[in-house]
Amino acid sequence: MTRKALKLVTIGGGSSYTPELIEGYIKRKEQLPIKEIWLVDIPEGQKKLNIVGAMAKRMVKAAGLDWDIHLTLDRRAALKDADFVSTQFRVGLLEARVKDERIPGSYGLLGQETNGAGGIFKAFRTVPVILDIVKDMKELCPNAWLINFTNPSGMITEAIQQYGKWDKVIGLCNVPVMAMINEPKTIGKKLQDLTYKFAGIDHFHWHRVWDKTGKEVTMDIIDQMYSGKDAGLPTNIFDVQFFREQLNQMKMIPCGYHRYYYRQVEMLDHSLEEFNNNATRAQQVMKIEHELFTLYQDPDLNYKPKQLAERGGAHYSDAACEAIASIYADKKTHMVVSTLNRGAVPDLPTDHVVEVSAQIGAAGAIPMAFGHFQPAERGWLQLMKNMELVIDEAAVTGDYGLAIQAFAMNPLIPSGQNAKDLLDEMLVANKRYLPQFATKIAELEKNGVKVHDKVAATIDDQMGVV
Amino acid sequence: MTRKALKLVTIGGGSSYTPELIEGYIKRKEQLPIKEIWLVDIPEGQKKLNIVGAMAKRMVKAAGLDWDIHLTLDRRAALKDADFVSTQFRVGLLEARVKDERIPGSYGLLGQETNGAGGIFKAFRTVPVILDIVKDMKELCPNAWLINFTNPSGMITEAIQQYGKWDKVIGLCNVPVMAMINEPKTIGKKLQDLTYKFAGIDHFHWHRVWDKTGKEVTMDIIDQMYSGKDAGLPTNIFDVQFFREQLNQMKMIPCGYHRYYYRQVEMLDHSLEEFNNNATRAQQVMKIEHELFTLYQDPDLNYKPKQLAERGGAHYSDAACEAIASIYADKKTHMVVSTLNRGAVPDLPTDHVVEVSAQIGAAGAIPMAFGHFQPAERGWLQLMKNMELVIDEAAVTGDYGLAIQAFAMNPLIPSGQNAKDLLDEMLVANKRYLPQFATKIAELEKNGVKVHDKVAATIDDQMGVV
Amino acid sequence: MTRKALKLVTIGGGSSYTPELIEGYIKRKEQLPIKEIWLVDIPEGQKKLNIVGAMAKRMVKAAGLDWDIHLTLDRRAALKDADFVSTQFRVGLLEARVKDERIPGSYGLLGQETNGAGGIFKAFRTVPVILDIVKDMKELCPNAWLINFTNPSGMITEAIQQYGKWDKVIGLCNVPVMAMINEPKTIGKKLQDLTYKFAGIDHFHWHRVWDKTGKEVTMDIIDQMYSGKDAGLPTNIFDVQFFREQLNQMKMIPCGYHRYYYRQVEMLDHSLEEFNNNATRAQQVMKIEHELFTLYQDPDLNYKPKQLAERGGAHYSDAACEAIASIYADKKTHMVVSTLNRGAVPDLPTDHVVEVSAQIGAAGAIPMAFGHFQPAERGWLQLMKNMELVIDEAAVTGDYGLAIQAFAMNPLIPSGQNAKDLLDEMLVANKRYLPQFATKIAELEKNGVKVHDKVAATIDDQMGVV
Amino acid sequence: MTRKALKLVTIGGGSSYTPELIEGYIKRKEQLPIKEIWLVDIPEGQKKLNIVGAMAKRMVKAAGLDWDIHLTLDRRAALKDADFVSTQFRVGLLEARVKDERIPGSYGLLGQETNGAGGIFKAFRTVPVILDIVKDMKELCPNAWLINFTNPSGMITEAIQQYGKWDKVIGLCNVPVMAMINEPKTIGKKLQDLTYKFAGIDHFHWHRVWDKTGKEVTMDIIDQMYSGKDAGLPTNIFDVQFFREQLNQMKMIPCGYHRYYYRQVEMLDHSLEEFNNNATRAQQVMKIEHELFTLYQDPDLNYKPKQLAERGGAHYSDAACEAIASIYADKKTHMVVSTLNRGAVPDLPTDHVVEVSAQIGAAGAIPMAFGHFQPAERGWLQLMKNMELVIDEAAVTGDYGLAIQAFAMNPLIPSGQNAKDLLDEMLVANKRYLPQFATKIAELEKNGVKVHDKVAATIDDQMGVV
Repeated sequence: MTRKALKLVTIGGGSSYTPELIEGYIKRKEQLPIKEIWLVDIPEGQKKLNIVGAMAKRMVKAAGLDWDIHLTLDRRAALKDADFVSTQFRVGLLEARVKDERIPGSYGLLGQETNGAGGIFKAFRTVPVILDIVKDMKELCPNAWLINFTNPSGMITEAIQQYGKWDKVIGLCNVPVMAMINEPKTIGKKLQDLTYKFAGIDHFHWHRVWDKTGKEVTMDIIDQMYSGKDAGLPTNIFDVQFFREQLNQMKMIPCGYHRYYYRQVEMLDHSLEEFNNNATRAQQVMKIEHELFTLYQDPDLNYKPKQLAERGGAHYSDAACEAIASIYADKKTHMVVSTLNRGAVPDLPTDHVVEVSAQIGAAGAIPMAFGHFQPAERGWLQLMKNMELVIDEAAVTGDYGLAIQAFAMNPLIPSGQNAKDLLDEMLVANKRYLPQFATKIAELEKNGVKVHDKVAATIDDQMGVV
Repeated sequence: MTRKALKLVTIGGGSSYTPELIEGYIKRKEQLPIKEIWLVDIPEGQKKLNIVGAMAKRMVKAAGLDWDIHLTLDRRAALKDADFVSTQFRVGLLEARVKDERIPGSYGLLGQETNGAGGIFKAFRTVPVILDIVKDMKELCPNAWLINFTNPSGMITEAIQQYGKWDKVIGLCNVPVMAMINEPKTIGKKLQDLTYKFAGIDHFHWHRVWDKTGKEVTMDIIDQMYSGKDAGLPTNIFDVQFFREQLNQMKMIPCGYHRYYYRQVEMLDHSLEEFNNNATRAQQVMKIEHELFTLYQDPDLNYKPKQLAERGGAHYSDAACEAIASIYADKKTHMVVSTLNRGAVPDLPTDHVVEVSAQIGAAGAIPMAFGHFQPAERGWLQLMKNMELVIDEAAVTGDYGLAIQAFAMNPLIPSGQNAKDLLDEMLVANKRYLPQFATKIAELEKNGVKVHDKVAATIDDQMGVV
Repeated sequence: MTRKALKLVTIGGGSSYTPELIEGYIKRKEQLPIKEIWLVDIPEGQKKLNIVGAMAKRMVKAAGLDWDIHLTLDRRAALKDADFVSTQFRVGLLEARVKDERIPGSYGLLGQETNGAGGIFKAFRTVPVILDIVKDMKELCPNAWLINFTNPSGMITEAIQQYGKWDKVIGLCNVPVMAMINEPKTIGKKLQDLTYKFAGIDHFHWHRVWDKTGKEVTMDIIDQMYSGKDAGLPTNIFDVQFFREQLNQMKMIPCGYHRYYYRQVEMLDHSLEEFNNNATRAQQVMKIEHELFTLYQDPDLNYKPKQLAERGGAHYSDAACEAIASIYADKKTHMVVSTLNRGAVPDLPTDHVVEVSAQIGAAGAIPMAFGHFQPAERGWLQLMKNMELVIDEAAVTGDYGLAIQAFAMNPLIPSGQNAKDLLDEMLVANKRYLPQFATKIAELEKNGVKVHDKVAATIDDQMGVV
Repeated sequence: MTRKALKLVTIGGGSSYTPELIEGYIKRKEQLPIKEIWLVDIPEGQKKLNIVGAMAKRMVKAAGLDWDIHLTLDRRAALKDADFVSTQFRVGLLEARVKDERIPGSYGLLGQETNGAGGIFKAFRTVPVILDIVKDMKELCPNAWLINFTNPSGMITEAIQQYGKWDKVIGLCNVPVMAMINEPKTIGKKLQDLTYKFAGIDHFHWHRVWDKTGKEVTMDIIDQMYSGKDAGLPTNIFDVQFFREQLNQMKMIPCGYHRYYYRQVEMLDHSLEEFNNNATRAQQVMKIEHELFTLYQDPDLNYKPKQLAERGGAHYSDAACEAIASIYADKKTHMVVSTLNRGAVPDLPTDHVVEVSAQIGAAGAIPMAFGHFQPAERGWLQLMKNMELVIDEAAVTGDYGLAIQAFAMNPLIPSGQNAKDLLDEMLVANKRYLPQFATKIAELEKNGVKVHDKVAATIDDQMGVV
């Protein structure tokens, strides 16, 4: 049986990460009989799309491949008969990220892309768009797989499943990837000689590790983390150490993002220090992006430049390629993905999305059963997963009461009037991308809610960097 | 069949609440064939025990009853062949409460008896004592019922069940009692014409209400709460309103203590304001206590003085009497109690303690099934119940890592070095009552951890009031 | 507040049980401000309806009440603005019961109304009709309560909830009623001095009992059952004793119908003996019915004749009246009803119907949490509840594969070709009442499946008795 | 790191299957650095042990390997410092199997080794012995893995976990192995090009299959089964087809043993036919065994003879070797094993043993989450798993009431006096191997219960074959 050559589509194709994606495909050329790659973007992204698209073509050509690279603003044309659709877009572009960081900061709160108020609003903006994409896919490519690495990846994957009713989706995150790249080195092992078991939800999971004699080496890795070795913390996360006594009790390795919850004060202080220095992550990202696109414009550059690794999302795109290759070529690879629980994490409902070690192959993701957590991790996890459900429901319905509930549940947003004011200002600030909240936003604006001048000024200022 | 006359025992009998307890027994004299009431206390409480014990005798005499009131420091003599044992003691007396309030306050954190760091340490101090009482009961009165209203009531009841392996226990709280006294009036109804369904855990539950036509009146009561009517908030809780939009989404009435979680910032600000004014709740309580014991010394006083109602724990003792009468006389009363879940709150494990509407009768507490919560309340509840389990396990084992975990989980204690320093200082400050943590405390002291001078001074100062 | 006078409707009003219902209403005249009682039947039941309706009028008149008794074949007119609708109809009349008993008997299998193949077909016939009634109720009396005592009561209540999406329903059964009438006497107690906890599903539940000193008396009642005392076994169940050693291990009282499962062979032998003597239960019922209707025709009879108690369904109608009065007058009565689980029976899903001790009042049925069963009962219960779900789904969809699955799961139908032949013959025999299976039945008939002559003859013969 | 050479121990080493085991080790000589193989048996098995042991030595020698083969009756000497212990013993030898088949047959019931009364008694006899082995292992080889393929494999593995508190155990069965060998051929595929997902419990599981394009091919395989292709039914199971309509609804492939439950009557008829012909499976097995041991005595035979494949347990021993190699060499193989659920089968408790697709490697078995079953399979599975728990508890405690409960739950034993009489006779017949039931058996014998003469005669007769 000969199978048709593949049509791969990337929504948000103008991203600076695209070279990693292309490199990932090239690396797997034996496994993936690619015919066409469609890079889709929106009008605001056209310029970047052209630059990065041209570079993608150079990369493919340099690899001696005859793949067709299509650059387009016509999403529906791209989706038509697609085999795999990957999503790496950012609704509202980096300006939205600046807002996610600056506005909470102005309330004395954490400004971060996937945690705290910023994470909630990123979901509010992204869920309607992804559901629209799913709607198109049902019509145009009903057999395609959707590989999502748009953040907040877990909530987006949950929305695709629960509200989009689309089962052929895998959500990806680079945090487990980076842990599995770096941790083995700390104990002088290779990844293939270890067994990893991850469980939790996106950006809120834990893992345990065994070596090939069957000995659990989780605490050995933790020992090395405390002796200063790099265990794969994404570069966008400020590095404050977990309390050793807490990890000794936990006997698992928390993910990098757990810092926001286990060392809340230090992470907030760091965030506010950046805020006060007008030096938020979005700004750094814009600077890196600017440098990257300058590089990409070099007509002689036909490989992924090493500078790309400095972006926090390194390895995301490669993970997407690996997921696509694992499904297409039935590789039965171990990956850590967002997928339906099905019992693998028995402390959470079976019919919701978790992030968990899974076998990825032609039959999709088969999650590996992790068993119960101890009470401390169980309580955290149940809070956070339910918060995800509240956020997704608010994102779909535009229910303002749910938005308050989500803010109140979020451990990084102390509840009260300050939080509610922040919610209101962020609703207004993100007005363009929140049609579901239109009525409420209109009411808020009528009542005088607006983006405070000082914040607005810094946002403009920051955006001027580009 | 004639049943033997009852021996009732109260541990912490020197409490200022004892007159409410005695009044409660007198009110139920037809249902309860009492022979002896034993009021037990510790040497430090002897003076109060004598005062309140004398008053109890006057009350009983004035009621024309021949009950024997025994005042004793010999707990084992009291427990021998007891029928009902109620517990209302405070390990460490009010000085411990002062510490629970002042030390967190000095870290900029909420100082409160059952929430935040104070609540955790109250559990740490109380669990070993209650388990010791249970041990005595197994030997001396293996058929007795234990009616616990020592706070944190839910965690103490959980410890009695899980670690004490004692099933005949009912945990009580006055919060639901006060809601059921006050809310009906707000909508012009009588309690007996309403159906209440409570579910959650102690100090963290929600309820719904129906009238006798079957109409749900939950939102009507909420309407009245916002129009300024008293819905039974305990006097020790600062009254800041819930966000109306949040309650509209929730469609349930949260308990008064939810303020600490839904209006965290305002509650903290209020607490810190009191802290800065050296005007903590413990101090108010000591003042009220001082006045009460002055009153109780009046040899002509033979009834519960109205001033007792100002204590936050009003109705606790009456609820204990009602529970005792309901069990003894098989009244099949509706009460809201801490008891084994058995499925009534399906979002929590079946074999742990919840606080829930139950039928109280000779067969004990039969909880009424509440069904699932919506995600927002489910997430909160699962976090808080698991935190209780972590606290209880830390209280039993003295595991310092678990204590850090409990602090980190607590939504009112932002995690980080500040929280850890607070934990350490509170361990040292409560040294006398924390034998389970002795090794860790010795290590901390060796490392120079101590109660800061300024805090120590205010504690002394506050205690000097008495 | 004055509430409107009540309109009560009974579907299947021509039943011989109607006098018990009327008597039940009369007994509760103080609690129920009845204005109209509508007795509804189908054309085939007109004659009985007239007889029993006339008698109902005499009963009401003799009680000095001015209630309007309406006799009608127009169900929609009856349902219009009804407050309570009770259902006691039998689709296919007694002829269907004869088939349920005779056809399985001819295959050497149990012929019984609610167990085995008969019970499955009773559900197949009844579910479409009850869903049709619910559809009418949504239009004509959307606020009414539906009190179902049409058998198989649990499956019908489940179908009303799951497929009818109608929440205001309570399913009733007389088995718990009879246990609670008779068991207390066996140990010299009164019901009000005992606490009963029932849990399971309709015709498949267990219970435990406590006296008013808190002592569990379950085993005392079991002792008395073995000493020959009547513990309330419905008269339609052959009385073979449970194995004492089994009950000693179980430490609960199984319901009468458990005989079919714990003494399968003896119950089958008895059934086959009746079958061979052409003396099935349906025949006895027809005989009793014939006598009853003869009595009812006596224009001087204006009270429920004692002979009615011989019908197996005694106390059903009274239980319906009690449920109606408990809801209307918010009596907060303890009743054992089929209602949504909500966690009360944690071994079964929360969102399906169980039969359980509940508090019945204005807010409906609030089930009492029973906690986990031991493995033996848990396994049985999970099998039987899932079988109910399969039967209901087959009844709604007409899926033949599901019908085979239901037959195979049923512990009283040994699976195999014999069972499949029985299924096929019963499908054809019940053709008139099984529109959902029409296509399959047509196919079966085309393949020559028919009611075997000998069986057909006995059915005719039995029906001729009337 | 050099790891020590392996000591492998097989309890029941005199089994006729041992050549398959040795062949399995030889096949994996590259993966397994074997130093010693200990074959352990009991005095009654000495003769067979000598024969098969000599053959094992010839096989190893022919393969050019220097492994030490130890033959011993000293189990403790064998267990000392073992790395892997596999169990393939039969308590009571084939005589017990004859009883398991003949005695139920004499009651008109299925006589089969792992289903019905025979399966229950096999567990009763085996559980005490396996727990004794585990006790020795805790002392003598606390780090060893236990690979159990003694039947009933699931219940034995459960007992090892729950009562033995031994986690390093994997239970094996050849049923999934044979399905995965044969089914791919029916659809013209290779196993490595398919994805299998199995879930359930031992001898009662279902599976689904996907091809490497992601298409589910479960129904394609079923199609082929009905067109007469061999799908791997073990040779000891009579081949009656499942009802096609039932499988169409199920959309999964049941295991071969499901025949006993889905075609109960035909399987019983076949069993009784064999019984009446004195031609039970045990007899066939004895005949095959006789032939095999005759072959094994040939001093020139140094390879596994093809006749061994006729035994129903073919592939069991090879699966054990594969499990050992997968653990030792961290192969991360897909195998279907009995292991702790951990959520993989969310319809069963997380902390009990299931049989499920798992990844086998150095960290043991990691089960793959299957998700919920539909109601029909869920009900069956929950019944059967709970029956296993009842059987194991009876096997450990010797509680006669539990034995009755187990018999009553078993779908292949119609409950009632006949079943109880069978239970009693089998208790007496197995007296020597049931110390836990000693008191009850003594009581039964006193009451005249004994193995009926006719059965006793056939047992003697059958045993005389050897």
